[in-house]
Amino acid sequence: MALVVQKYGGSSIADGERISSVARRVAKAKDAGNEVVVVVSAMGDTTDELIRLAQQVSAQPSDRELDLLLSTGEVVSSTLLAMALETLGYRAVSLSGAQAGIETDSRYSRARILRVDPKRIISELERGNIVIVAGFQGVTQEMDIATLGRGGSDTTAVALAATLEAKECQIYTDVEGVYTADPRVVPEATKLKKVGYEEMLELASYGARVIHPRAVELGGLYNVPILVASSFVDRPGTIICKEASMEVRNKVSGIVHDTNVAKVTVIGVPDHPGIASAIFEPLANADISVDTIVQNASIEKIADLTFTVTRSDLSRAMSIVETVAKTVEAKRCVADSKLAKVSIVGTGMLDTPGYAAKMFRTLYEQGINIELITTSEIRITCIISEDRVEDAVRALHRAFELEKE
Amino acid sequence: MALVVQKYGGSSIADGERISSVARRVAKAKDAGNEVVVVVSAMGDTTDELIRLAQQVSAQPSDRELDLLLSTGEVVSSTLLAMALETLGYRAVSLSGAQAGIETDSRYSRARILRVDPKRIISELERGNIVIVAGFQGVTQEMDIATLGRGGSDTTAVALAATLEAKECQIYTDVEGVYTADPRVVPEATKLKKVGYEEMLELASYGARVIHPRAVELGGLYNVPILVASSFVDRPGTIICKEASMEVRNKVSGIVHDTNVAKVTVIGVPDHPGIASAIFEPLANADISVDTIVQNASIEKIADLTFTVTRSDLSRAMSIVETVAKTVEAKRCVADSKLAKVSIVGTGMLDTPGYAAKMFRTLYEQGINIELITTSEIRITCIISEDRVEDAVRALHRAFELEKE
Repeated sequence: MALVVQKYGGSSIADGERISSVARRVAKAKDAGNEVVVVVSAMGDTTDELIRLAQQVSAQPSDRELDLLLSTGEVVSSTLLAMALETLGYRAVSLSGAQAGIETDSRYSRARILRVDPKRIISELERGNIVIVAGFQGVTQEMDIATLGRGGSDTTAVALAATLEAKECQIYTDVEGVYTADPRVVPEATKLKKVGYEEMLELASYGARVIHPRAVELGGLYNVPILVASSFVDRPGTIICKEASMEVRNKVSGIVHDTNVAKVTVIGVPDHPGIASAIFEPLANADISVDTIVQNASIEKIADLTFTVTRSDLSRAMSIVETVAKTVEAKRCVADSKLAKVSIVGTGMLDTPGYAAKMFRTLYEQGINIELITTSEIRITCIISEDRVEDAVRALHRAFELEKE
Repeated sequence: MALVVQKYGGSSIADGERISSVARRVAKAKDAGNEVVVVVSAMGDTTDELIRLAQQVSAQPSDRELDLLLSTGEVVSSTLLAMALETLGYRAVSLSGAQAGIETDSRYSRARILRVDPKRIISELERGNIVIVAGFQGVTQEMDIATLGRGGSDTTAVALAATLEAKECQIYTDVEGVYTADPRVVPEATKLKKVGYEEMLELASYGARVIHPRAVELGGLYNVPILVASSFVDRPGTIICKEASMEVRNKVSGIVHDTNVAKVTVIGVPDHPGIASAIFEPLANADISVDTIVQNASIEKIADLTFTVTRSDLSRAMSIVETVAKTVEAKRCVADSKLAKVSIVGTGMLDTPGYAAKMFRTLYEQGINIELITTSEIRITCIISEDRVEDAVRALHRAFELEKE
């Protein structure tokens, strides 16, 4: 019998009615002859409500307690889905992350899965049960509950699919799949039928909010086919899998954008060894994730260093960098929070210089100034002014003819 | 260092402010030089809300899933109390029932504690932590979560106090202690300083809602002194402990009453062996708890059999008994739901016939008809009409001079 792992996000199970409707979808997979394991997030805005409760008693709750508190949200939704399935006449059992054998390290609030002990899940499947697993959580060696942080439930689902050797990991969410661009910005954007792990990783990291990059990475590592589809409508989604062809496909898959970008520039940095680590180590210690880093060519041993962070981290980043700037005798620091990223993603693009040139020309024709450029093997990203980002996405989508399937 | 176990009920921790205020009480016990273990119920009406959620997806959720769902309520409140203590500068850690080593059988929704493995609690205490334990729950041998049913958190607290050899188990609630009668009915009722386990068991079983009889029984078994006091005001409560004097005290401790009483009478039951079990076995199988049972003297081999149940069980009990009545050829069944119980409780009363006589005379002088009488070694209970129960309580309180301390 084939095994599928399904994952439903918070908006898919926001109330009793939606949970019952998800139960019918799960039942369909079971009726089709599959063994079914389902991973659920917390209902709707449960997690935010629990955080609000914590804030009522503590300005800075400890991660250990917060994790145990937040883990209850997914336990609640998993039991409700199991009940809804029982109501439909199916055998179902819900398991907390600990019961499901999700073993993590002790980095509370952003734990990593160390291994999955699938004993209990397998024995429940053998008894004919549909197994519902509370996502986003695991248990440490000390038997404490740790949550996985952002993208946690997606990661739980892919980790279970990998361990159980599922034929597919199905991520059901409020979008219908992966598009060539955000359909809210580009109405003629088309849905991709298939996308490779690498490309999806770039798409997800650079603005497509359908699945967390961490889950994509894990899927690629274990070669788990991941379907991203809507939990509300019954339409084919996008499959994330190994490239069908071994040859580089050499085509733009999609345009992604992200407006949560702020830029910090340290001007007049003396160019000698150790400066970069002097700046980025304290940022890392403060848990500020730095994205793009650009250092311009050093003229007379003086450089400008620019990097981007998310907007919510900007003020913390500035105060750290301003302190460091004094120590290293940089001239000054400048912040800009009104920026956005726009990227084109596709395998093998970099081998074909035409893509980069076409991207820059398209932006130029729109009169859009490029502040920073970064590239990966399969992505070219420009940092531009926030108020022009939608124009940029639409122009690039047209230029690369993505409206044609 | 002495160890105390404290327990706070749902109304004591109904919101963030009350949780912070409970944290200050807990901190006080720690400051006084104690090791402190705290057991909490779910906040306010959390449990009812979770049950409502379950009812949205299932008319009859399975006990296994419902238990896992409900257990989250106590986990939430225990983490919040730990956070509130950390905010006050105390080291605290919250543990779910499973983490705290509360091992139960698999009778979901009404599990019994089989043993407590205190390893984790002891190691947390040794690290200087105040330990907060989620009440009402434990873990089965199969690592499933089971809830303890009514009085569950009280029972958790007493079981922990027994295992950890605490000097006292303190039950904080919304009443100030155990009274000679319900102060809402008898304004001159006085608070008992001390009461024996046996007496408390009768008081609790027969109407005093301060602590669950199950917890009292466990306390008596392991000789755990239990303090019942208010979590809102700082006044001495009532201590439940072994009788101070080995001699029977021979005094009425209190008057209790309960209006949740319904009576079923099976009229004209042929008086031969096996009739009682034919009636009461199906009731037991339907999980209907039968309280008082009275069978009158058999005249010409025909008897009337009367028993009481809680009002919520009446209609189910009647439909079962009516079926049985036909099989055993009883004449008919009559139900009365407008009844109440009033009891006087005190050690050694039964050896002194004066108490029973005084009780009956007092009711007679009030013109109150006695429908049924039952007694235990330390209790005399009369079933009377519901609309006269408050008169009965007040008259008995006066007759036994309980307003005098």
